[in-house]
Amino acid sequence: MLSSEGLYQLVAIFGGTHGNEMSGVTLVNLWIQNGKEIQRKGVETKPFITNPRAVEKCTRYVDTDLNRAFTTENLSGDDLPYEVQRAQQINETFGPKGSPEAYDVIFDLHNTTSNMGCTLILESSKDHFNLQMMHYIKKAIAPDSCPVLLTEHPLLKYSTSRSVAKHPIGLEVGPQPQGVLRSNIFESMRLVLKHALDFIELFNEGLEFPPCTVDVFRVSEKMDYPRDTNGNIIAMVHPNLQDCDWEPLNPGDPMFQTFDGTTIRYEGAGTVYPTFINEAAYYEKQQAFVTTRRETLAAGAIKKT
Amino acid sequence: MLSSEGLYQLVAIFGGTHGNEMSGVTLVNLWIQNGKEIQRKGVETKPFITNPRAVEKCTRYVDTDLNRAFTTENLSGDDLPYEVQRAQQINETFGPKGSPEAYDVIFDLHNTTSNMGCTLILESSKDHFNLQMMHYIKKAIAPDSCPVLLTEHPLLKYSTSRSVAKHPIGLEVGPQPQGVLRSNIFESMRLVLKHALDFIELFNEGLEFPPCTVDVFRVSEKMDYPRDTNGNIIAMVHPNLQDCDWEPLNPGDPMFQTFDGTTIRYEGAGTVYPTFINEAAYYEKQQAFVTTRRETLAAGAIKKT
Repeated sequence: MLSSEGLYQLVAIFGGTHGNEMSGVTLVNLWIQNGKEIQRKGVETKPFITNPRAVEKCTRYVDTDLNRAFTTENLSGDDLPYEVQRAQQINETFGPKGSPEAYDVIFDLHNTTSNMGCTLILESSKDHFNLQMMHYIKKAIAPDSCPVLLTEHPLLKYSTSRSVAKHPIGLEVGPQPQGVLRSNIFESMRLVLKHALDFIELFNEGLEFPPCTVDVFRVSEKMDYPRDTNGNIIAMVHPNLQDCDWEPLNPGDPMFQTFDGTTIRYEGAGTVYPTFINEAAYYEKQQAFVTTRRETLAAGAIKKT
Repeated sequence: MLSSEGLYQLVAIFGGTHGNEMSGVTLVNLWIQNGKEIQRKGVETKPFITNPRAVEKCTRYVDTDLNRAFTTENLSGDDLPYEVQRAQQINETFGPKGSPEAYDVIFDLHNTTSNMGCTLILESSKDHFNLQMMHYIKKAIAPDSCPVLLTEHPLLKYSTSRSVAKHPIGLEVGPQPQGVLRSNIFESMRLVLKHALDFIELFNEGLEFPPCTVDVFRVSEKMDYPRDTNGNIIAMVHPNLQDCDWEPLNPGDPMFQTFDGTTIRYEGAGTVYPTFINEAAYYEKQQAFVTTRRETLAAGAIKKT
């Protein structure tokens, strides 16, 4: 049994890491005014707007993507863009990243224009506490689904805002356009967070969570839009793939459609599960979607000591 | 019979009036490279990116909304925001607004996050040429629908980019998030424009269009989100109303849902037809949706003289 390390009493909920993803911005602002909904026994929960200037302008960021800014170099540099300064402040308040004083859990609330439903993002396959939490949430919201995206990858490094915590958890809920608040998306996010906080309370009360397994989608490969020699996009996500996040994409399946109607097919070696399909914010990151592969992770038992 | 005034040879197609509405941006850029698809006998068609800086930044505008900038004061002022300077240049190239030298027709291509389908926007109920064109388009794309939104209103003035032409036509196609290109939305816009250009060609060839009627939705009232005394939104579009653009809203029907779950109902005097429901760009304009009323307009016969 994993004897877990502490009281798990410091929990932060981040909204507005991207200033135009409205569910998290709205929920966090609501809870700053009245935190009753997020109070749990033995847990100190802090709702926090991470990028207030971007929220004010209703834009993803001001100078650079805050959710990629938490690199070691950034966290020690000076004379830097707004989001990097902000990353340093957040690291001081909720970290320092990798230290024993860091917050136990940070939830970072995001929306996507992709049809990803209510997705939990996990950064490490070895994080038994988070795996147990995700197992709990999946059971609690069944028969609705709650896919887990594992971003652990030998090459792709994200340096997210939530990475300053011991147990970072991303919530990515969609589809919702940037700058828009949809009641269905808002209520889905709110419900997942309720179950997550319930789990932390149960853990704090000393409940033992026995070993379990969690099905996840592990990030595999970034796929860019087809482009001409000047870098201009020459094809769109194919209508057969659009909105089909988490569904199998097999070799030979339609993937893109050029402006003159030609179909471009997937030519990988085996079945993958695309997600973040046609996400607005990823055009600038040269990413039409990301492929994932299914995997089952084992979580050891946990109990507060 | 309306003996119409000229050759109808000068046609412009505007994209990127809002830099993050991607169907028009993409189509216009495609046609600037290769205009074959938009060539018609007796018609000179000019594809044009109206707000290149906003397109570059993939944002609605840089300083101010170009599509509200074509006021008389703006068109004669100096030392002004980027979009106002741009409005003056566009007015010189495609106008001057209200003059005999102005372009005959301008199509202005827009996307919306609202579920408006493929909407044609008409600025004047007396514009028989445009009414005939819209009648033609509606017939051509049936059984698919193509609602006409009439923005003529005693108080609401829009001062749109297309208003420099004798016959201004807006195309508003959705739902599509800002910064995203969806193939279904792209192809719908492309098809409507094809029929519109076909109509102009037929008119130029001397075909007579007999009197007809066109069902339109006339803009009636702007509805704001419920707000607290600080101006913060306290409710969302109700799930029963979300995505129900053009469907009847009756007195007593749910309209908003507060964050604590209370339903706010429509209390108007009679049935209205909401549209632009939960459009991202209209949060800053204090508009959750606009109500419209149904009306049938008569178009006189037209024939080129």
